[in-house]
Amino acid sequence: MSSTIGDLGEFGLIARVTARFPETDDVILGPGDDAAIVSAADQRVVASTDVLVEGRHFRLDWSSARDIGHKAVAQNAADIAAMGARTTALLIGLAAPKDLPLAWAEEFAEGVREECATVGCTVVGGDTVGSPTLTVSVTALGSLDGACSVRRSGARPGDRIAVAGPLGLSAAGLALFQAGLAGEDAARAAVTEHRRPAPPYAQGPRAALAGARAMLDVSDGLAQDLGHIAAASGVGIDIRRDALDPAPGLLSAVEMLAASGHPAGGAGRPPREAAADLMVSGGEDHALAAAFPPGAAPPDGWSVIGAVREAAPEGPGVTVDGGPPTGGGWDHFGR
Amino acid sequence: MSSTIGDLGEFGLIARVTARFPETDDVILGPGDDAAIVSAADQRVVASTDVLVEGRHFRLDWSSARDIGHKAVAQNAADIAAMGARTTALLIGLAAPKDLPLAWAEEFAEGVREECATVGCTVVGGDTVGSPTLTVSVTALGSLDGACSVRRSGARPGDRIAVAGPLGLSAAGLALFQAGLAGEDAARAAVTEHRRPAPPYAQGPRAALAGARAMLDVSDGLAQDLGHIAAASGVGIDIRRDALDPAPGLLSAVEMLAASGHPAGGAGRPPREAAADLMVSGGEDHALAAAFPPGAAPPDGWSVIGAVREAAPEGPGVTVDGGPPTGGGWDHFGR
Repeated sequence: MSSTIGDLGEFGLIARVTARFPETDDVILGPGDDAAIVSAADQRVVASTDVLVEGRHFRLDWSSARDIGHKAVAQNAADIAAMGARTTALLIGLAAPKDLPLAWAEEFAEGVREECATVGCTVVGGDTVGSPTLTVSVTALGSLDGACSVRRSGARPGDRIAVAGPLGLSAAGLALFQAGLAGEDAARAAVTEHRRPAPPYAQGPRAALAGARAMLDVSDGLAQDLGHIAAASGVGIDIRRDALDPAPGLLSAVEMLAASGHPAGGAGRPPREAAADLMVSGGEDHALAAAFPPGAAPPDGWSVIGAVREAAPEGPGVTVDGGPPTGGGWDHFGR
Repeated sequence: MSSTIGDLGEFGLIARVTARFPETDDVILGPGDDAAIVSAADQRVVASTDVLVEGRHFRLDWSSARDIGHKAVAQNAADIAAMGARTTALLIGLAAPKDLPLAWAEEFAEGVREECATVGCTVVGGDTVGSPTLTVSVTALGSLDGACSVRRSGARPGDRIAVAGPLGLSAAGLALFQAGLAGEDAARAAVTEHRRPAPPYAQGPRAALAGARAMLDVSDGLAQDLGHIAAASGVGIDIRRDALDPAPGLLSAVEMLAASGHPAGGAGRPPREAAADLMVSGGEDHALAAAFPPGAAPPDGWSVIGAVREAAPEGPGVTVDGGPPTGGGWDHFGR
């Protein structure tokens, strides 16, 4: 009876893992050959890649294998959604110690499969290799289905900035783990979001159809990520803290953090203020943020949180209530 | 002055690395947004992914950063070629310790750039993250340019099996490193092939045009990889050792290995026999192997090495001179 991925071997593992993925209408040739073939009916393919590393992007004591499968799919499919596209197919690389339990690999694959079902995509290829460090690399492919892509460079003064999906909730979940409070009932929404972010995938193409002309997903923090739109578009963006609507569970998470003395609790400031800080600086929820021109109403599910202005004399950038953003974003080398 | 990738930070590194890649006609949107957009004029995209891990797929004392950049591109572009397709774009994930010298990352990118120029593709996206284990993940995208794909399942009895590109040379190079002989003049061809395999990219689409009806790239060893064609096609494949033509430098490498007592030298058997063993079992040259039906002449650059037969009563499989293959292939968990 095999109990580690090393016992099963590379080809056995690939066969076990890929067997569970259904073929979809977008798949011309699935796993098992030198390469897969995916439909690209409008003659374009959208593509993005991300790497998740144990200890940096997930912790095995905080997240289950299934959680990590969900998260790996979610963060890549969010990138595709942020172009206004629909994710069609994934390729997944798994580098893992050969003593990794086979059950872990199968639970990981199950999380991938479940999140793929939510997204509406499937896995068409992959690679499994031995490594001392558990590492998951995901490439997502997507289709614009004939629509124009929504890039970071299209925002213009007068546009409204709107967001879809939760903000700050994953960061609150991370803080709750740090504070040893992740097991509490009131922590559940934030902890779940940290383990399995649930990006509003369908809102990407919907925003594109509604006329959004710049968009991205919030992975490093709202203010920092809007800075990429500001820089690419050559504009200023101002967001209003009072327009940021806390997701269900965020305020209760902040109150628990405040009671525990964790700095994310706000250090004595009102919970609503601490929640706004997390919403401005927290990443990894993979909410979508977009610029809608005058006359293009953000669809249901989007909240207007600010506006695009001419760039300040010192250059493009983001302000919060007219001033500098507080809190930083997330640099993947951990500076 | 920045000297490690951690000093430069994620965004700085991405900017430094992507700046050197030219846009090609296949690129609709290059790096810098949430995702790239690549042309797929015939409404299909071919896609494959591979992960390379330090200590398993390369050693920093045996290969330069530039070599590793070359190799990462080569092994992925070979997968695309093996479908009969042309590689159009790559996405690259780099997981690395933050004290990795910036010069290393830049040399790696230079190797990627050089091999991309050989292939005729470019890098459209990537991700850089911190990790204790240096890991490179590459996804290659390709175009069939209207042609039919060449899968593993199309071989039929009566087809001829032919190969393009060197066999066994990379394995000889690895053995020369193990034997401490990699610095010798006569080792150069094998050592260079091990560091920077040079797959015959253009032979993939050329074989497809010539009528090849099954194809793959040899990454785990000729006999083992032809076993995938045999299994997928439900046939037997017999290859002839005397039809395997040693690449320039292979016999001299084998003679050096024999003199040193390394088992790859053949343990007293004639050099030509030891070379044939390496050609049957050695992987990582990323030669192409294909089945050509009667009447479809393999193009220049291909050598016929065997034939497709009905599967034996015990099932599909590969024989060498009518008997079982000797030597194993390469399992990526190192069984």
